[in-house]
Amino acid sequence: MKDYGNPLTHVVSIPPYPPGRPTDAVAREFGLDPASIVKLASNESPHGVAPGVIAALAEVDAASNIYPDFDCYDLRHAIAADVGMAPDQVLPGAGSSEIILLAARAYLDGTRKAIIPQYGFQSYEGAVRSVGATPVFVPVKDWVPDIDAMLAAVDDDVHLVYLASPNNPTGTVLPRAEIERFAQALPPHVLLVLDEAYREFLAPEDRPDIARLFQMRRNLIVMRTFSKIHGLAGLRVGYGLGDGELLQVLRRLQLPFSVSAQAQAAAIASLSDSTFLERNRVENESERARVAAALEKAGVRILPSGGNFLLLEVGDGPAISRELMRRGVIIRPVANYGLPTWIRATIGLPRENDVFLGALDEVLRAAG
Amino acid sequence: MKDYGNPLTHVVSIPPYPPGRPTDAVAREFGLDPASIVKLASNESPHGVAPGVIAALAEVDAASNIYPDFDCYDLRHAIAADVGMAPDQVLPGAGSSEIILLAARAYLDGTRKAIIPQYGFQSYEGAVRSVGATPVFVPVKDWVPDIDAMLAAVDDDVHLVYLASPNNPTGTVLPRAEIERFAQALPPHVLLVLDEAYREFLAPEDRPDIARLFQMRRNLIVMRTFSKIHGLAGLRVGYGLGDGELLQVLRRLQLPFSVSAQAQAAAIASLSDSTFLERNRVENESERARVAAALEKAGVRILPSGGNFLLLEVGDGPAISRELMRRGVIIRPVANYGLPTWIRATIGLPRENDVFLGALDEVLRAAG
Repeated sequence: MKDYGNPLTHVVSIPPYPPGRPTDAVAREFGLDPASIVKLASNESPHGVAPGVIAALAEVDAASNIYPDFDCYDLRHAIAADVGMAPDQVLPGAGSSEIILLAARAYLDGTRKAIIPQYGFQSYEGAVRSVGATPVFVPVKDWVPDIDAMLAAVDDDVHLVYLASPNNPTGTVLPRAEIERFAQALPPHVLLVLDEAYREFLAPEDRPDIARLFQMRRNLIVMRTFSKIHGLAGLRVGYGLGDGELLQVLRRLQLPFSVSAQAQAAAIASLSDSTFLERNRVENESERARVAAALEKAGVRILPSGGNFLLLEVGDGPAISRELMRRGVIIRPVANYGLPTWIRATIGLPRENDVFLGALDEVLRAAG
Repeated sequence: MKDYGNPLTHVVSIPPYPPGRPTDAVAREFGLDPASIVKLASNESPHGVAPGVIAALAEVDAASNIYPDFDCYDLRHAIAADVGMAPDQVLPGAGSSEIILLAARAYLDGTRKAIIPQYGFQSYEGAVRSVGATPVFVPVKDWVPDIDAMLAAVDDDVHLVYLASPNNPTGTVLPRAEIERFAQALPPHVLLVLDEAYREFLAPEDRPDIARLFQMRRNLIVMRTFSKIHGLAGLRVGYGLGDGELLQVLRRLQLPFSVSAQAQAAAIASLSDSTFLERNRVENESERARVAAALEKAGVRILPSGGNFLLLEVGDGPAISRELMRRGVIIRPVANYGLPTWIRATIGLPRENDVFLGALDEVLRAAG
């Protein structure tokens, strides 16, 4: 026994979540002016928030003494209208992070297993280990989840699969037909959690048809977030879509009032601005193509990306990250994903991307 | 198996958290004008937020596209300075609700038990059951936790005790000396979570000396919140104080970025306004005394309260609650606490308290 009692042994062994480093922390460490730093580390939107969001927030800010609506009535109705489902098929959470965790807490324990594709988002493993369950990592094939290998890995103890498309941190997209094949073939005792955090960066015709997926299986949760294309990462709001009865199971575990009043108001305002969202998508697409072309021209290997970021091979990822930071550019090393030679860079504004490309050029020349 | 897979059996049996009903929901149900409703249901501060909070929020709102600082660097330093502890002895969370849950997830599982005093805050039981552990309810003595009975209930399987003073929903205060006696006598394998959500409503000389408590035991977490006297309930921010190593165990389980950028900024701004906080305390004290006197004069039994609310005996609590709601006054029935003849009413502004007293008088007369 420690003299602070007996925490559960599986808890003490959880790897801590490595977030992108905040600008202020990097500025402190390297003695830089925070205003000069270009942060491309957390796949944040460079386009800020929709104009209507600021007004919606100002209204709520003055009433911060009132608890949020735990039922998220207005937000559930707004999301339901947006996605074409019923309000009781929507479960808002504090980012999709909360939905990831709720699925693990509801479906996993020390006797159960969850399948995570190789290079799957770090929070999946964190959630699985936090409840003492066992993650089963299934190798990718050509950088995308290997559907057949995942199906082969299912046994009676597997009760959950996390699957993302586009996937973070690789950016790779699993074709719609493959997702549908998986949804159909996955045995019915397994909950499929499909993470669509980056869905809105895909061209509309490339996005999965979730109505079809829900026809194929009831034990499915589709997750979305307001942290990416909506530009609301600071507020923590995302949601799960799924069967109403299933979502009620997760909701019993939900932190009371986990979605703040500000987050609810901002998300509703942002949903209504389709022009803002479409412009963000188009700008991301063209800047991503420009940055990718510049990197390829410089001989840097990149993976095809459906998100607002690129994964690029640079040699010693952590060392290159550090050199970039010293020059005021924060990107994300991904050694913790078993990708020590790669780094992940968010697509920023044209000016920010130019700063990144220039600094990377400098660092790679110096390294090599 | 359900056709949405196999959720854990203990999860399906959790009682849902019954939050105070939002004004809009009550307005919808009873066909009332939301602006006319007096909500005294959730122990929210009637004094709004400190003036500096609005400016702090406005600044962050425009940068909502940036993730919060998961490390809560500035907030931890501000709290540490305020409470006279070190920054690594502070763990901010999404309300004290998150700390309550983290303690359960770190210290409890299906083989363990937690002690909860009778009439302890509902979220304690929710947290304990959410991890499949067993709550052990220990009857109060004269409405306050019975220290000796709680000590007698400790065995090797008990790893956690939740204890609040002032306690919600009763309002009762456990004397400092009793808290110290408990902290000293509780066996070292048990984590003590002391909930001080309502601490700031006590006169300074009545507040526990937590430095003394931390001298007595290392396995102690003291919880505080910004939801009550600070008036930041809508933003979701609270914190745990304790041993740095112990807090690191909890932090491994924490939802990434659970404290929003807005919540961090607002909390820092609010901490700096001691005039605002002291005025809120004094106004609560005088209004609480006035409401208590009026209720006693009307022959309504009340409990002595150290919080910003009163527990009062009205006969049929749920029926009286409903009658008050019909008249546009929302208070909290507490039948779910085994207190079906009581209701809990928050101390509001003088005008709100008058509306409540008037409506209650009417309803009690009608009930006969």
